[in-house]
Amino acid sequence: MPKVAIVMGSKSDLPHLKGAFEILKDFCIDTEVRVISAHRTPAEALDFAEGASGNGIQVIICAAGMAAHLAGVVAAHTTIPVIGVPMASEPFNGLDSLFSTVQMPPGIPVATVTAGKCGGKNAALFAISILALKYQVIGDKLKEFRHKQTENVKSADAEVSKEYSVFF
Amino acid sequence: MPKVAIVMGSKSDLPHLKGAFEILKDFCIDTEVRVISAHRTPAEALDFAEGASGNGIQVIICAAGMAAHLAGVVAAHTTIPVIGVPMASEPFNGLDSLFSTVQMPPGIPVATVTAGKCGGKNAALFAISILALKYQVIGDKLKEFRHKQTENVKSADAEVSKEYSVFF
Amino acid sequence: MPKVAIVMGSKSDLPHLKGAFEILKDFCIDTEVRVISAHRTPAEALDFAEGASGNGIQVIICAAGMAAHLAGVVAAHTTIPVIGVPMASEPFNGLDSLFSTVQMPPGIPVATVTAGKCGGKNAALFAISILALKYQVIGDKLKEFRHKQTENVKSADAEVSKEYSVFF
Amino acid sequence: MPKVAIVMGSKSDLPHLKGAFEILKDFCIDTEVRVISAHRTPAEALDFAEGASGNGIQVIICAAGMAAHLAGVVAAHTTIPVIGVPMASEPFNGLDSLFSTVQMPPGIPVATVTAGKCGGKNAALFAISILALKYQVIGDKLKEFRHKQTENVKSADAEVSKEYSVFF
Amino acid sequence: MPKVAIVMGSKSDLPHLKGAFEILKDFCIDTEVRVISAHRTPAEALDFAEGASGNGIQVIICAAGMAAHLAGVVAAHTTIPVIGVPMASEPFNGLDSLFSTVQMPPGIPVATVTAGKCGGKNAALFAISILALKYQVIGDKLKEFRHKQTENVKSADAEVSKEYSVFF
Amino acid sequence: MPKVAIVMGSKSDLPHLKGAFEILKDFCIDTEVRVISAHRTPAEALDFAEGASGNGIQVIICAAGMAAHLAGVVAAHTTIPVIGVPMASEPFNGLDSLFSTVQMPPGIPVATVTAGKCGGKNAALFAISILALKYQVIGDKLKEFRHKQTENVKSADAEVSKEYSVFF
Amino acid sequence: MPKVAIVMGSKSDLPHLKGAFEILKDFCIDTEVRVISAHRTPAEALDFAEGASGNGIQVIICAAGMAAHLAGVVAAHTTIPVIGVPMASEPFNGLDSLFSTVQMPPGIPVATVTAGKCGGKNAALFAISILALKYQVIGDKLKEFRHKQTENVKSADAEVSKEYSVFF
Amino acid sequence: MPKVAIVMGSKSDLPHLKGAFEILKDFCIDTEVRVISAHRTPAEALDFAEGASGNGIQVIICAAGMAAHLAGVVAAHTTIPVIGVPMASEPFNGLDSLFSTVQMPPGIPVATVTAGKCGGKNAALFAISILALKYQVIGDKLKEFRHKQTENVKSADAEVSKEYSVFF
Repeated sequence: MPKVAIVMGSKSDLPHLKGAFEILKDFCIDTEVRVISAHRTPAEALDFAEGASGNGIQVIICAAGMAAHLAGVVAAHTTIPVIGVPMASEPFNGLDSLFSTVQMPPGIPVATVTAGKCGGKNAALFAISILALKYQVIGDKLKEFRHKQTENVKSADAEVSKEYSVFF
Repeated sequence: MPKVAIVMGSKSDLPHLKGAFEILKDFCIDTEVRVISAHRTPAEALDFAEGASGNGIQVIICAAGMAAHLAGVVAAHTTIPVIGVPMASEPFNGLDSLFSTVQMPPGIPVATVTAGKCGGKNAALFAISILALKYQVIGDKLKEFRHKQTENVKSADAEVSKEYSVFF
Repeated sequence: MPKVAIVMGSKSDLPHLKGAFEILKDFCIDTEVRVISAHRTPAEALDFAEGASGNGIQVIICAAGMAAHLAGVVAAHTTIPVIGVPMASEPFNGLDSLFSTVQMPPGIPVATVTAGKCGGKNAALFAISILALKYQVIGDKLKEFRHKQTENVKSADAEVSKEYSVFF
Repeated sequence: MPKVAIVMGSKSDLPHLKGAFEILKDFCIDTEVRVISAHRTPAEALDFAEGASGNGIQVIICAAGMAAHLAGVVAAHTTIPVIGVPMASEPFNGLDSLFSTVQMPPGIPVATVTAGKCGGKNAALFAISILALKYQVIGDKLKEFRHKQTENVKSADAEVSKEYSVFF
Repeated sequence: MPKVAIVMGSKSDLPHLKGAFEILKDFCIDTEVRVISAHRTPAEALDFAEGASGNGIQVIICAAGMAAHLAGVVAAHTTIPVIGVPMASEPFNGLDSLFSTVQMPPGIPVATVTAGKCGGKNAALFAISILALKYQVIGDKLKEFRHKQTENVKSADAEVSKEYSVFF
Repeated sequence: MPKVAIVMGSKSDLPHLKGAFEILKDFCIDTEVRVISAHRTPAEALDFAEGASGNGIQVIICAAGMAAHLAGVVAAHTTIPVIGVPMASEPFNGLDSLFSTVQMPPGIPVATVTAGKCGGKNAALFAISILALKYQVIGDKLKEFRHKQTENVKSADAEVSKEYSVFF
Repeated sequence: MPKVAIVMGSKSDLPHLKGAFEILKDFCIDTEVRVISAHRTPAEALDFAEGASGNGIQVIICAAGMAAHLAGVVAAHTTIPVIGVPMASEPFNGLDSLFSTVQMPPGIPVATVTAGKCGGKNAALFAISILALKYQVIGDKLKEFRHKQTENVKSADAEVSKEYSVFF
Repeated sequence: MPKVAIVMGSKSDLPHLKGAFEILKDFCIDTEVRVISAHRTPAEALDFAEGASGNGIQVIICAAGMAAHLAGVVAAHTTIPVIGVPMASEPFNGLDSLFSTVQMPPGIPVATVTAGKCGGKNAALFAISILALKYQVIGDKLKEFRHKQTENVKSADAEVSKEYSVFF
């Protein structure tokens, strides 16, 4: 079965990645979780990125804030798809993280998802959509997940519509 | 062989996607090119997205500017990976496009690459990194591409270093 | 009597729309309230938008945050006036919502009102100003509302002026 | 037949409103065009706004740049729907115009459309969608316009798809 | 003795103007305080501005948030100096207020001071610097105020320097 | 007669201040023009600011770009009113200049006018509105100027209204 | 032994500089701490800057918020390296401080570090990297500090990896 | 004699660094010029950074645009002072470059200078101010440079003051 890596730039990013952990667990996808700093443990970043493919990792999710170089540094050392999650760091609310993650120069892309608290979940779902191309069982689960998600919004719709619509 | 779709929101986006066309051609990847507007041809957007997987498309690249809904609308109707390219539209230089593309709510991710003129090339390269997971020949070509790219920068380095370094 | 629809992208937007509910109720306007996600229930968005006119809806208010596509998607499938309310979503305080709502490409406009907590109220008042063109009773009530609003500020003025002005 | 007013804050805004003129002419809608400055001709702004309804105007389009107060000032003196078009003024590319137009306080809404060169066209189309609620002939023309617009994008799609798709 | 007017767009701005009240009181300057909304009480805005000079007002301070038109509207109807204070309104932290206040088109200037909580105090001090040109007693007090202000920072400097400097 | 000083941070700001020169000349106000850099000629900035009042200067206009400290530095050394003009410097279009000029900490205000090309003219007009409090002849001229300005917009209105209005 | 000065624009900046104090203490570097306001105690700023070199200070750290002129003013009066720390001041979260500190015009540079709560620590570390060029003992300590910092992240990595990785 | 390195992320940055080359040449400082991409030649970045100190380099200037990771990556692998120059890249005018360069997380600082065309010159001058701490001859030249710079502004002042001041 495929393996996804979630790498965060700092242990303090952990709570913001809860959504990613949950989704990958729900899909029964092996998940290697790491704390690697592009700046404070650059050698580990290099080792991790260069070894990722050999270690069976097929997609890498990198979450970092501020001058968020982590995804870019990892992407520079591997050809595996790298998904960047801009953390909503202070004081610029993550605009710095978003720019630092998405504005990669030509040649080394990072696929960036939603900045802020939904980023982890969306990164995991995007990783799953990649894996679904190879593993039909994952694709089937993804369709089921999407179906359930649609049903949830429809339930909310029914409930809200009933309670809040007003006809004179 | 796999197929990638490049969808643009307006014919005027064509020149900005040249980089994407070139890369995919270099990698001999079948490329279906479409002009579909999330707002002016919404039925076509729906048809395209729902039919994409059945038509053998494995990755979709969506390029749009301003309130750039194209990638999001397509992603809502398929589970195939969707890559968004924010066009650098006037008057806000593409900050509107970037926000509209990347800030997808939880559940439906769009993988966003560089806003502006490098976006097309990076979208194509990211699509290739996805396909490389399944097709080793593409993975090999990607490594070769990256190697050549590295060599080009090294040549520029040698040249510039020689011409501009000054030692008294 | 005319009908207005208030559509929100997520049930969590409910509290921010209280102002809209109150205003429409005060004006005795039939209000259909819906939770429809442009991305998670796109089929419902399509059904709603295409059926709106036939269902007697004359103005549609769409409230959404982040990459707020809801108003645009609805506007793409109807010729009824669509008013967009950018929710003040995290982490970018609604600048993403504002850009995603207002920067519609040429051909499919969305009329955007105040981002943030006053948006709901202003959307309802704008909907009423549209209906007032057809229904004189609504127009009369709107003038009365505006008059009362003016009186309220004048009362505050009298009170503050008396308490805070200082003449030596 | 109904009448729409287009008010601009400065004669220099004229070229940016060409789209609005064309659309309203195509729909055979009486169009009163005015140059009124919220700051340099405030008395005229007041006279215009207070007299608009009596003069048969049903929708007002206000285009202004910088600290764009025109739409707000007009809206303060009438209950007719006011549509704001933020001009892309220097040096802030119209972000000042957008904020000044859309962020109206609670009680006096301005319906804001796309900032920049598409704003005029979208303002006219939104005005038409309002009038279409009362005048069926305008509604029919609007549907036709939207249909033609869709066809134009579909033609571009056919052309581009044929020329740029590559299948190996 | 001269008179300054402090006009706020909403009663809710009161606490943010405490600094202005205090400064003007300390300088024994007659202060007329008003709540006038450019949009909800436009007639009062007009009356106030046109009558200000005749009522002995020499400087007008206008504080407003969001699409902050108050200062501009007042400035349009008087030649008295108008000082604008951008309130730090939600959700854009007052960037909308700042742009709406300062970016006045050519011909009708508004002198804008610090956005946010220091704005009131600085507006009052700037008003005082204007009055000091005419009234020497005010100029003398202003110099004294500045001297005391300098001494306060110097005290803080002495205290902090003693407590936090470290010499090995 | 009173004297106004126009200080620019760099000779390259000259063309952007043309509007200020013209206005002050039209009002026959003595104008001392200086090039003083807060950073490159700080001693001159200090000398100028401290000597300004003694040299008969009643209002100081400071124009600077980027980290625009000029107005603040001058204001720190005088109690004369200081008006700041944020130049539209590259690459941030003057947002840096605006923030650096207007966001003065409590105690030392700078009255900031329009960033960009209209700033010079508006600074001169604001200076004139200050002087008008003391010199009735200037006040009379200012009213005349404002009247003429109004007439110019009214002429443009008449012309545009005639040429562009369309009645079917 | 070398001496570093930490200058803050206001006593209220103290808590945000804790990181700087700690680092410099850990490295046993003499630290002179001052509260000097570019605007409220400009004479002290001048005295401090001109005397710094003579007082044995080799690097100056300046922390200020809003229109943060402190670093620039100090840099204008000395040739010692000046490091600027943009404080995360309200309401613009320090974007004003960042622009005011970093965008120095040509000729007088300020070396700016991270805006917000990490700025103090990073300023101290950069000061140390400068001193390390002259004092080998400091360079050795810096390498040790960096090594320990790397080990801390590696420990977090080991811990998180063990606890959060999931393999099915 | 000391050596400074100027590293750019792309050969296309060359013209924007002219100011840096000139300054360092004027000061007769050995300058090693390199083109190294954090993403396309990461191994070279690592080699360069780790070897810099051993190769006699005392200060490193890194210029890059977009998601400008170059300075951060180099700083992660050396304890030599690293100065970052944010290039004014499209479409975001260098705000992405500025954020990516300056917002370094705690522990690895990058000293950032002016974004845009003055950045190169200011980086060189800051490097020189660092070297001046060790090499008195450089310090003397820096004082001379600053003196000449002051004289140039004073000349411009004399010229402009004479030509543009108007006294009636």
